Amino acid sequence: MRIALDAMGGDYAPATTVEGAVEALIENNDLSVILVGDEAEISLELKKKNYKGLQISIKHASQTVEMDESPLTALRRKKDSSLRVAVDLVKSNEADAMVSAGNSGVVMATALHVLGKIQGIERPAIAAVMPTLKGRFVLIDAGANVDCKPLHLYQFAIMGEAYARYIFNIENPKIGLLGIGEEDAKGNELTKESGKLLRNSHVNFIGNVEGKDIFAGEADVVVCDGFVGNIALKISEGLAEATSKMLKREISERVSGRIGYLLLKNAFRSFRKKTDYSEYGGAPLLGLSKPCIISHGRSTSKAIKNAIKLAATCHSKRVLEVISKEINEGISRREEVAIKK
Amino acid sequence: MRIALDAMGGDYAPATTVEGAVEALIENNDLSVILVGDEAEISLELKKKNYKGLQISIKHASQTVEMDESPLTALRRKKDSSLRVAVDLVKSNEADAMVSAGNSGVVMATALHVLGKIQGIERPAIAAVMPTLKGRFVLIDAGANVDCKPLHLYQFAIMGEAYARYIFNIENPKIGLLGIGEEDAKGNELTKESGKLLRNSHVNFIGNVEGKDIFAGEADVVVCDGFVGNIALKISEGLAEATSKMLKREISERVSGRIGYLLLKNAFRSFRKKTDYSEYGGAPLLGLSKPCIISHGRSTSKAIKNAIKLAATCHSKRVLEVISKEINEGISRREEVAIKK
Repeated sequence: MRIALDAMGGDYAPATTVEGAVEALIENNDLSVILVGDEAEISLELKKKNYKGLQISIKHASQTVEMDESPLTALRRKKDSSLRVAVDLVKSNEADAMVSAGNSGVVMATALHVLGKIQGIERPAIAAVMPTLKGRFVLIDAGANVDCKPLHLYQFAIMGEAYARYIFNIENPKIGLLGIGEEDAKGNELTKESGKLLRNSHVNFIGNVEGKDIFAGEADVVVCDGFVGNIALKISEGLAEATSKMLKREISERVSGRIGYLLLKNAFRSFRKKTDYSEYGGAPLLGLSKPCIISHGRSTSKAIKNAIKLAATCHSKRVLEVISKEINEGISRREEVAIKK
Repeated sequence: MRIALDAMGGDYAPATTVEGAVEALIENNDLSVILVGDEAEISLELKKKNYKGLQISIKHASQTVEMDESPLTALRRKKDSSLRVAVDLVKSNEADAMVSAGNSGVVMATALHVLGKIQGIERPAIAAVMPTLKGRFVLIDAGANVDCKPLHLYQFAIMGEAYARYIFNIENPKIGLLGIGEEDAKGNELTKESGKLLRNSHVNFIGNVEGKDIFAGEADVVVCDGFVGNIALKISEGLAEATSKMLKREISERVSGRIGYLLLKNAFRSFRKKTDYSEYGGAPLLGLSKPCIISHGRSTSKAIKNAIKLAATCHSKRVLEVISKEINEGISRREEVAIKK
């Protein structure tokens, strides 16, 4: 499997991207990675690593997308950016999937523009992974579409279900709608209408889910519009960070606390691992014709490594083909026709 | 100051409500509390306490609102419920403010129906308080209005600002709009339009804020629609609970962890205190003609005590009069006229 990596994307690129690629290849020798970006800079980083025997190559790109650049400007003026060239490699079938930790708005716009959508999909959506007491759940849409219609949320559920089934090996994923009360009548216009569609669909819909339910692991897939999803994601990240800081401050103010902390170090480490986004590597933009993984701008080499592995798994498990089949031939298409009538 | 307390509202009522009332009166002897509900049950709880010298009385009400009852049914069929009678006491000026930990949908509907809105206010909103690394912030609307227009969010900002100024003594509160990126162009249709109104208003508007910003304490007031606000609130509660459970599990799995936990107990306790909703007691439904505090269904006696004190402070600081002045005579009215043109 051939993964195109936007080697210049992310706050610590290309150091972390090159390191992440090398680590991924060491762990999985079925993979090859094409590092896309400034050849001189990438070579410099690569020379620091032992990459003998690994299937790694460089594809030069003369431009870089800035973190504050608008998607429109980038699409028009950066046709030789590391991101654009990486996406082009997937389009021309020189790579099977791509990964970028760059400006996520530009990654989405570029991938959508170049690769296009799966036929029948109205809007591609970001499927992020979040931890629960039992394991994890898929949050879809985590930020691609800010204003949505019920049909969009219905399709997000179909895509999230396929992702949970094929990537996390959950047999009959439980689908919840992020809402504000368990009763069907609670919610806004969008969730009430979306709930009706999902109740009549073939997915294992468990109704509305709230904050306490989702972290208890009641649902495998949590569906919402991209505005709400992005807020849910960022609030969780922000609170986890603040919680950890508050606890550390409380501890450092107490001598017995400091001793306690030393004894607790392993417990904290294991906890951090469970809630660490870099364990999941990145989030696919589902609904595009090819696998495209968006990583956090602050990605470490570990996050990049895991994103590359996720891109490879999405390709090998043919998640997008499953989605396409379900939307175009399967039950979902019949359901949608019924919805539109 | 006379507070009417729905003594039958909440999961552990009337034990916790009676205890909370007694505690509030012990701490503040300017207060009087009217316990509204089943006289026999309340008397039984009251007999367990030493309430000699406290200004406490009982007002009998023959009905109780159930937690799963619909607002419409309750309004029609429960005209002698503990909630309804408590609200009626405020309406007839026999009490200055009221508190209920009952079914929040019914509390909102009843208070709105009986007390009415401040003239000029389109939609009353719930102002909840959440912890930050520096202190706390006001989240408005935390769940009263699921589908909002820009003018509503603009008014929420005015009300939240007055609340932060008068209740938390913040001189020039910083107002943020809960969004998905700091740039003005990011957000959904509602937040983009609301942002324009707030930028042209007299409030100290700092633009969009995200999860990491709000827990870092960047804004004193965070404005959003009630659907998003309720999700933000519930996700924070759910994650805080899950985090604490995960850490405890990690700790109990390790012997050194258990010793560490004993040493850390005080740090954990102080942390819990900072993130414990019962410290704030409840959230006012701002925009009504009289102070009405909605408490968590799971309220402990401490939460009830703090809710009673909050109701008294809202009354004594005349927060609602400030809001009315700002909306009807002050700058806000002129801004709104400009908006509507």
